[in-house]
Amino acid sequence: MVRQRNKPWADDFLKENSHFVIPDPSEKKDIWHEVFGNNNPIHLEIGTGKGQFLAGMAKQFPEINFIGIEVAKSIVVTAAQKLMETDQDNILLINENAEKLREIFAENEISTIYLNFSDPWPKNRHEKRRLTFRTFLDQYKEVLQPNGELILKTDNRGLFEYSLVSFSEFGMDLKEVNLDLHKAEDPENVMTEYEAKFSANGQVIYRCRAQFS
Amino acid sequence: MVRQRNKPWADDFLKENSHFVIPDPSEKKDIWHEVFGNNNPIHLEIGTGKGQFLAGMAKQFPEINFIGIEVAKSIVVTAAQKLMETDQDNILLINENAEKLREIFAENEISTIYLNFSDPWPKNRHEKRRLTFRTFLDQYKEVLQPNGELILKTDNRGLFEYSLVSFSEFGMDLKEVNLDLHKAEDPENVMTEYEAKFSANGQVIYRCRAQFS
Ligand SMILES: C[S@@+](CC[C@H](N)C(=O)[O-])C[C@H]1O[C@@H](n2cnc3c(N)ncnc32)[C@H](O)[C@@H]1O
Ligand SMILES: C[S@@+](CC[C@H](N)C(=O)[O-])C[C@H]1O[C@@H](n2cnc3c(N)ncnc32)[C@H](O)[C@@H]1O
Repeated sequence: MVRQRNKPWADDFLKENSHFVIPDPSEKKDIWHEVFGNNNPIHLEIGTGKGQFLAGMAKQFPEINFIGIEVAKSIVVTAAQKLMETDQDNILLINENAEKLREIFAENEISTIYLNFSDPWPKNRHEKRRLTFRTFLDQYKEVLQPNGELILKTDNRGLFEYSLVSFSEFGMDLKEVNLDLHKAEDPENVMTEYEAKFSANGQVIYRCRAQFS
Repeated sequence: MVRQRNKPWADDFLKENSHFVIPDPSEKKDIWHEVFGNNNPIHLEIGTGKGQFLAGMAKQFPEINFIGIEVAKSIVVTAAQKLMETDQDNILLINENAEKLREIFAENEISTIYLNFSDPWPKNRHEKRRLTFRTFLDQYKEVLQPNGELILKTDNRGLFEYSLVSFSEFGMDLKEVNLDLHKAEDPENVMTEYEAKFSANGQVIYRCRAQFS
């Protein structure tokens, strides 16, 4: 709340840019392809932050539509300002909590979900808030196409360990586990803000890809 | 072979100590409890090396029977010399290749399997030799009790990444993933020879526990 008072113009900004930060996303449920105006696959990033990952991905993969969902209003504004400058027409943002995913997307509407440096919520009593807790996985399974992938990147050891076990308990299939993503140069990897910061500090970056079966 | 010529007395040693290094282990299939003379659960370490892990475990858990299987004759002799000195009556060794597991143990005869610092076989064309390749998992599943655990420790990133995916493809359930075992002091953890050496070098130690379902 404090954060939002710091940017009183945020509401005005969002109103003016409703073509880019979609104001009532549940109205677009099952018609996101129409919003993009094409039938390209839709990839969703949850907890987009300031948008660095989406900027890089949208440029590298122009035939994919990218949606970022970010709960913090002031952060989504910063992301929108940066991403609109790129003039990519394959990016949209949503200012919502990922808890509402199944209200926003229809079954099978998404082909890939990215969780990048999600908040780790290390305390046991906050387990339910982790974006890899089973209630979130339920939603991902619903909105993802069969064979759609959930791709997790993080520097947080506890979150990564937890997520691998949570995926397994949910019956998901691990397709890849990488315990030092930056060890070898991967020209396809697009860094997020957090990834750039943490890896500059010498922190190991973990990644895994998993599917629902 | 060269190694074995270096210890010409190895065969004699094994003959004399057939109560400890069991010479024809397939004859004991389904009667390992009788060999130990009690009904305690049996834990199996595959690729035992020089026996440091078994020595520590057998002492810490006197109500568990431990069997080590080690393919290299000269190494099993070294292990036997060390382990017999401990005077623990809950350890036995087998000088065999783990490929023969289902000839040596009956269904459900084992309650836990340890893979400690298994040879990583990093080349793709050697995948079949990795002790977490599916043909090995087939055997582990057969000899392990329902709910029996496979516990893998290694410093080798490639082997660990591979094994997590291999377990998942096999439909196993991950019970724990630890990406820095020595970060916190765990008084229950018994170090192996390789573990002591690698962690002294500052190398991270990985561990996971998995079950067949
Ligand atoms: C640690 S930041 C990472 C930002 C960015 N993904 C990166 O890698 O640089 C996590 C972001 O996720 C957002 N977030 C946390 N929980 C969320 C939720 N339930 N729904 C949507 N966004 C969420 C936070 O507001 C924050 O911007
Ligand atoms: C890298 S060493 C690790 C030794 C010990 N576990 C440790 O952690 O210090 C691997 C050991 O596994 C043994 N080994 C490799 N493949 C095996 C197999 N198929 N069956 C039995 N032992 C094997 C090797 O001979 C070697 O002693």
